[in-house]
Amino acid sequence: MGFDSHRDHTRKVGSAPGTLVDMPVTTPARLWAVHYLGDDMTEYPDIDADAARVIVKKEGVTWIHIQGQPDRQLLDRLGILFDLHPLALEDVQTLVQRPKLDIYQEQLFAILNLPRWNGESVELEQFNLFIGEGYVLSIHAGEEEVVQAVRRRLAKARTRLRTHGTDYLFYALMDLVVDQAFPVLETFGEEVEALEEVLLERPSRDLLSAIYQHKRNLMILRRQLWPTREVVSQLMRGTNDEEYFAPDLQPFLQDLYDHTVHIMDLLETYRDIVASMLDVYLSSVSNRLNDIMRVLTMISTIFIPLTFIVGVYGMNFGNNTKSPWAMPELNWYYGYPLVWGVMLVIAAGMVVFFRRKGWLGGGR
Amino acid sequence: MGFDSHRDHTRKVGSAPGTLVDMPVTTPARLWAVHYLGDDMTEYPDIDADAARVIVKKEGVTWIHIQGQPDRQLLDRLGILFDLHPLALEDVQTLVQRPKLDIYQEQLFAILNLPRWNGESVELEQFNLFIGEGYVLSIHAGEEEVVQAVRRRLAKARTRLRTHGTDYLFYALMDLVVDQAFPVLETFGEEVEALEEVLLERPSRDLLSAIYQHKRNLMILRRQLWPTREVVSQLMRGTNDEEYFAPDLQPFLQDLYDHTVHIMDLLETYRDIVASMLDVYLSSVSNRLNDIMRVLTMISTIFIPLTFIVGVYGMNFGNNTKSPWAMPELNWYYGYPLVWGVMLVIAAGMVVFFRRKGWLGGGR
Amino acid sequence: MGFDSHRDHTRKVGSAPGTLVDMPVTTPARLWAVHYLGDDMTEYPDIDADAARVIVKKEGVTWIHIQGQPDRQLLDRLGILFDLHPLALEDVQTLVQRPKLDIYQEQLFAILNLPRWNGESVELEQFNLFIGEGYVLSIHAGEEEVVQAVRRRLAKARTRLRTHGTDYLFYALMDLVVDQAFPVLETFGEEVEALEEVLLERPSRDLLSAIYQHKRNLMILRRQLWPTREVVSQLMRGTNDEEYFAPDLQPFLQDLYDHTVHIMDLLETYRDIVASMLDVYLSSVSNRLNDIMRVLTMISTIFIPLTFIVGVYGMNFGNNTKSPWAMPELNWYYGYPLVWGVMLVIAAGMVVFFRRKGWLGGGR
Amino acid sequence: MGFDSHRDHTRKVGSAPGTLVDMPVTTPARLWAVHYLGDDMTEYPDIDADAARVIVKKEGVTWIHIQGQPDRQLLDRLGILFDLHPLALEDVQTLVQRPKLDIYQEQLFAILNLPRWNGESVELEQFNLFIGEGYVLSIHAGEEEVVQAVRRRLAKARTRLRTHGTDYLFYALMDLVVDQAFPVLETFGEEVEALEEVLLERPSRDLLSAIYQHKRNLMILRRQLWPTREVVSQLMRGTNDEEYFAPDLQPFLQDLYDHTVHIMDLLETYRDIVASMLDVYLSSVSNRLNDIMRVLTMISTIFIPLTFIVGVYGMNFGNNTKSPWAMPELNWYYGYPLVWGVMLVIAAGMVVFFRRKGWLGGGR
Amino acid sequence: MGFDSHRDHTRKVGSAPGTLVDMPVTTPARLWAVHYLGDDMTEYPDIDADAARVIVKKEGVTWIHIQGQPDRQLLDRLGILFDLHPLALEDVQTLVQRPKLDIYQEQLFAILNLPRWNGESVELEQFNLFIGEGYVLSIHAGEEEVVQAVRRRLAKARTRLRTHGTDYLFYALMDLVVDQAFPVLETFGEEVEALEEVLLERPSRDLLSAIYQHKRNLMILRRQLWPTREVVSQLMRGTNDEEYFAPDLQPFLQDLYDHTVHIMDLLETYRDIVASMLDVYLSSVSNRLNDIMRVLTMISTIFIPLTFIVGVYGMNFGNNTKSPWAMPELNWYYGYPLVWGVMLVIAAGMVVFFRRKGWLGGGR
Repeated sequence: MGFDSHRDHTRKVGSAPGTLVDMPVTTPARLWAVHYLGDDMTEYPDIDADAARVIVKKEGVTWIHIQGQPDRQLLDRLGILFDLHPLALEDVQTLVQRPKLDIYQEQLFAILNLPRWNGESVELEQFNLFIGEGYVLSIHAGEEEVVQAVRRRLAKARTRLRTHGTDYLFYALMDLVVDQAFPVLETFGEEVEALEEVLLERPSRDLLSAIYQHKRNLMILRRQLWPTREVVSQLMRGTNDEEYFAPDLQPFLQDLYDHTVHIMDLLETYRDIVASMLDVYLSSVSNRLNDIMRVLTMISTIFIPLTFIVGVYGMNFGNNTKSPWAMPELNWYYGYPLVWGVMLVIAAGMVVFFRRKGWLGGGR
Repeated sequence: MGFDSHRDHTRKVGSAPGTLVDMPVTTPARLWAVHYLGDDMTEYPDIDADAARVIVKKEGVTWIHIQGQPDRQLLDRLGILFDLHPLALEDVQTLVQRPKLDIYQEQLFAILNLPRWNGESVELEQFNLFIGEGYVLSIHAGEEEVVQAVRRRLAKARTRLRTHGTDYLFYALMDLVVDQAFPVLETFGEEVEALEEVLLERPSRDLLSAIYQHKRNLMILRRQLWPTREVVSQLMRGTNDEEYFAPDLQPFLQDLYDHTVHIMDLLETYRDIVASMLDVYLSSVSNRLNDIMRVLTMISTIFIPLTFIVGVYGMNFGNNTKSPWAMPELNWYYGYPLVWGVMLVIAAGMVVFFRRKGWLGGGR
Repeated sequence: MGFDSHRDHTRKVGSAPGTLVDMPVTTPARLWAVHYLGDDMTEYPDIDADAARVIVKKEGVTWIHIQGQPDRQLLDRLGILFDLHPLALEDVQTLVQRPKLDIYQEQLFAILNLPRWNGESVELEQFNLFIGEGYVLSIHAGEEEVVQAVRRRLAKARTRLRTHGTDYLFYALMDLVVDQAFPVLETFGEEVEALEEVLLERPSRDLLSAIYQHKRNLMILRRQLWPTREVVSQLMRGTNDEEYFAPDLQPFLQDLYDHTVHIMDLLETYRDIVASMLDVYLSSVSNRLNDIMRVLTMISTIFIPLTFIVGVYGMNFGNNTKSPWAMPELNWYYGYPLVWGVMLVIAAGMVVFFRRKGWLGGGR
Repeated sequence: MGFDSHRDHTRKVGSAPGTLVDMPVTTPARLWAVHYLGDDMTEYPDIDADAARVIVKKEGVTWIHIQGQPDRQLLDRLGILFDLHPLALEDVQTLVQRPKLDIYQEQLFAILNLPRWNGESVELEQFNLFIGEGYVLSIHAGEEEVVQAVRRRLAKARTRLRTHGTDYLFYALMDLVVDQAFPVLETFGEEVEALEEVLLERPSRDLLSAIYQHKRNLMILRRQLWPTREVVSQLMRGTNDEEYFAPDLQPFLQDLYDHTVHIMDLLETYRDIVASMLDVYLSSVSNRLNDIMRVLTMISTIFIPLTFIVGVYGMNFGNNTKSPWAMPELNWYYGYPLVWGVMLVIAAGMVVFFRRKGWLGGGR
Repeated sequence: MGFDSHRDHTRKVGSAPGTLVDMPVTTPARLWAVHYLGDDMTEYPDIDADAARVIVKKEGVTWIHIQGQPDRQLLDRLGILFDLHPLALEDVQTLVQRPKLDIYQEQLFAILNLPRWNGESVELEQFNLFIGEGYVLSIHAGEEEVVQAVRRRLAKARTRLRTHGTDYLFYALMDLVVDQAFPVLETFGEEVEALEEVLLERPSRDLLSAIYQHKRNLMILRRQLWPTREVVSQLMRGTNDEEYFAPDLQPFLQDLYDHTVHIMDLLETYRDIVASMLDVYLSSVSNRLNDIMRVLTMISTIFIPLTFIVGVYGMNFGNNTKSPWAMPELNWYYGYPLVWGVMLVIAAGMVVFFRRKGWLGGGR
């Protein structure tokens, strides 16, 4: 996950707002539509924008979906056919990566971020939703067609989806996109739990890197998902005076709102937990240093005095046979064993000292 | 306490909102009811949903309680009999673990978390409460029947519980669930106090682990309990224009609200205290390292120069008898005692130096 | 200061809200009353609740004060005589330790915390205040009769206290309780300043403990005092539409509010300062470790190479007289002084190196 | 800068609010007045309160200024003459050090803090401002007469100050007091920049102390200045319905408000920067420890094995001439140079090892 | 980036608000204007203020732009000709560096900060915008004429810019200034990513300095940009009742607002990331210390006991031929190889110990 969500902006500083440009398209767009009214439902796989416009004019609900990044020509055409605001089209093209809800005269426009786990980290795909009279237009700038789940549910007649209008379809798609965060968060949660196990037992340099990466990714993810909450909340407040949403949708929007709150809650809890892990890591490293130093200190403290003693009897004063003060110990009968005795006593004293300090137990 | 409260969501991403599924039920549900009016009270142990519906139709207050996790069939049946909203039933089944209050046309629906101390950590059991015309329906997805306390109070006639309607019963059950947090918090408080005692005296690796676990659990617990406050607050604001709550219940709801605020206060204070403990732990570990290093440095600094001196007189220059510069000290009459004298002076000097540095006192 | 403010709650989980119980009373209650009207004032030392009720019925202002913890019988009697709400009585008895203002039909009920310095830390005593028609009832669950200050002021006729009604008396008592925090905060401030002096000069283990204790106590104290602000603010907002408070009391309540804000400000500043002290402590301990290590490193670095050199000439190759390569230095005329010269040069070089590193100055 | 702003409160806990007491006055008060109307302006140096009252009664604007701490008699007299509220007088006397705006029936009363740099740290002087009908009364409890700047501006006719009424004078004095913070903040900024330079190059114990002092002083200063913002904001909201402020003063108050916001912004930025410096300091100290330890480790690691080797050949096995296993190396022809060769190889290997570890470069 | 944004204030403490002074001008001002109406557009390069005033009186939209710092004379003249408020002129001159929107009777006045990357850090240039009847006056106190981008767009007829009035021009200039932040943030993002790579692999002292500089600059930049958000938000709320902005500009202002929110989001995310880097840096340095200490401890722990052993056999007890206890080992046939054997066993035991401790792997 990079920081580059603002780079698209960079290219066009100074150009007129609402200008579409020719951009390289990595995933070419494919457009399909579904139309339903009562028990009838027709699918239109792979049609063009003009054909879609014709279908929308019929009574009933039309769902137009574009999978992939639409190029400039398609956006221009959609703008003309459906009277879409130039700023909205610009947002579709530049992949702004910030959820928002714009209320234009002729349509409502929502941008959502669809989080996906790519095996290593989270990627966000922009999901655009327009709702206008008689139609919902969804544009998903990713490869995998996640909206198939809703399309399959549409196939079954007399479900809530089929008996309601465009508003419920709009809601169902938002619900789908928002709920994509749950499996991603589950993966995150598992990774965090895995880190926790390592943290207290074997804090390694890799762990530091992993904790940092998680913290950083959670901060970025949080920034990119939290406006979703505002989008849904705006939608809820708007349902009373807006023409697009029926009052009986309120409980569903409330439910959706609860999901966004739940997601933010989890993200923040994870972030806080990962932040504590950094603190604990530092303490663990210090503990480890203590262990190392304790070993060094014990060995040094026992042997340094002993080495001094043996050094004493390595001195060559004994060669001076004329002085009775010249290391007479060397000539004692039990001199050598006595030195050993003294050294053992010192070593034992040190061990007692360490035991009293509590340095011998492996527990700390 | 794990992070897995969102896993149930995971399974159904893309399915229609409000769908009930067949789930494995660990604690099978048992349904009983109580009906009271004036001085009369009847208990109906172990009946089914349809029988309960008949009782509700009678004048007076009916309390239906389900202990355990209701299976899909029971929920479907309850939904039809009491006209419960599908989203509410879904929440009952999926154990969302986030307190909330939903206002539906035919009933009010509250989810609460009942915290229980399982000996090692806190577990949360979902407690669902419906209030509709003439009845309160409570569903507790746990094993122990904590609602018995309210049932016993109902047995006594002319109490406030018996002379009020469904609203007071609803309140009494919420009060019961919310107050379960107090003994849990008491246990937490005792554990935190126990950690504090250890913290400053014997900071061990286990303590670090314990502090981290507490911090993490408090963060999760806080996330899972704080929406309770919002639920009660919504209830208070709603009593004026809602049909379910009589105005004289306001002081009781205020009291309940004060309890939730008190609980959150305690949780946050504990969390802040545990967070400080982590900082103090790090300082303690550093203090400990200082102690270790002081010992090492004292021993090393005293003996390293002495070892050097004895090394000097271990050199074999003395064998060179032709030069008067070849270690004449070895042949001095008091050479050996003199070396000892010099060494004692150096050692004493070091001890004075350490005393001046304040390294000898055990106080730091 | 302990965490146990919630333990009283613990005992009664599941019992009916508003239930009085028989509790052990540590400081038995004593009731007295004062009645005044115009220039007349009568004191009634040591009367019972029924007598107090009779006095209240007279024209003028009656102040009833209970010093100590009232037992169940007294509370029951007061409840009946003055029509006090059962939840209020329960709060009086259970010592909830959270300031709040409850507005009941027949009276206003405020709980305040009176902080007292017991020589070592802060203790909080619950102070309950009822205001009803013609009377103020204060219950102070402590030993020392702090309200004597107000009683003495009452003795003087034509003061603001005597010429105003129950509202001013109520305010005067709140002002008294709130202002008790100032001497306590002064003591805290002095302790913090004393810690600051020690912090940078002699950071000891005791200091760490003291800092932690202060931080912890400030967190708890802050939690237990900040709702006071809300109580006064509620009182201010309420004076317009409530019957209890005359408009000309507004500046006095504003002044009281400013005091509570000032207290919270001081508490938070202290808390932030103590939190910084923890950071500084850690740095101080590290500085200290640096000092220790610098000494060790200097001694070791100077003597280890020298010890190596003397070790070299302690080798016994010189005994091999057949080889001209066998330590010829031992037989040089100036061999021994030369070795000393080399060693002095090395030692001097090290000292120069340390001076360049800036390790010799005591300044760091 | 001390914590003692609450000590004055301490002395009077329990006394009646609004009571003036006899306090020691360190800077005796001097009163002067200025009266102006159209092109006329008269100065009255060194008059008494009764004379000032007479001037106020004339048509036009009267500015009464008191430099120093007024004693009890003067305050009592002012209270009677200008009908000042007892609580306001008490605030003037007790030096509460918290900016606030009190709206009394007969006058508006503002307390501001005038920050002054005394060469070492910031001192706050209380500046009181009353505005009533036809007069502004300012009381500055400091020595230096900073209001001279406004007095000089008054001398010039037809300026905005002279053509407006009391409201503009009131504003001009507030502007003067608020802007005193800018030179103080400039000094702070320079000190912080000076600390920054030292921080990364030579982190010393003095620096730790300086950082801590700055952090602490900024926290206290922030607490004592931020209510100023609220004072100005209250003034702005009030100008519509108050009688004291003309609508065309609004842009000037807005400008003043922007200054207070700017000051708080700077204070908070400084505080955050100083807080980061503490973190960086800790890292710097650790870096420094690493440097020390690297030197120790390099010296030790090179010489300890060498010292071992020379120790080996200091053993006296060579005296045993009967065994061919008794240190035959001592008798080799090239034994001694060979030992040196081995030692050089080991030392070189260690240097290579350190270079690979990156420990030799001074860069870290 | 320095802290000195408040220094200009410093010079004039005490002078009358709205006073212009003679200041040294580093970039002399150049004034040009553009007038357009329908398909006609005329450019007036390098004219004076009076000429500009004449153009403004014509029907259509006039854009007057001043590049550089206007001197006192020009500002005075502009003030008289366009009736600009003295406080606004003062703000233009003193370079306050805090975005704000002031609503004066005759015009709206906005101050924005235009961030520019000067190769090393961010510089802010003040951009002033006036909108009055029929004209927009922009003053950019920088050298490079960034507004050329808008001027070029104006050249093209029938664009949104040409068909709208002064309000759209005002918006287009704000949009230009706000969007200048994106390339700067991109540069920041790249630098932060570069730091991240270094952080975990080679934490050096330079990195600490770089992290600190970034954190500090982000804090200052955030302070200087965030009020922009408030400016745009005020503009949005104002468009309903203000005469300057047509309702159809609302979506554009909303878009602009989203950009400011996005910029603040990015700044805060960067700040949080850089803050975590500081924590990770500290852990990295500690890890590094662990590495160093592990090497020292391994070498010391292996060789210190061995050096003791060889020291033992360097003792001169063997010379005492009279005692059988005088180091008989020296005379053993296999004495010397035996000592080597013992030493190898000890060394091997130490290596096994280290492997068990996990100290040999380079992984941690």
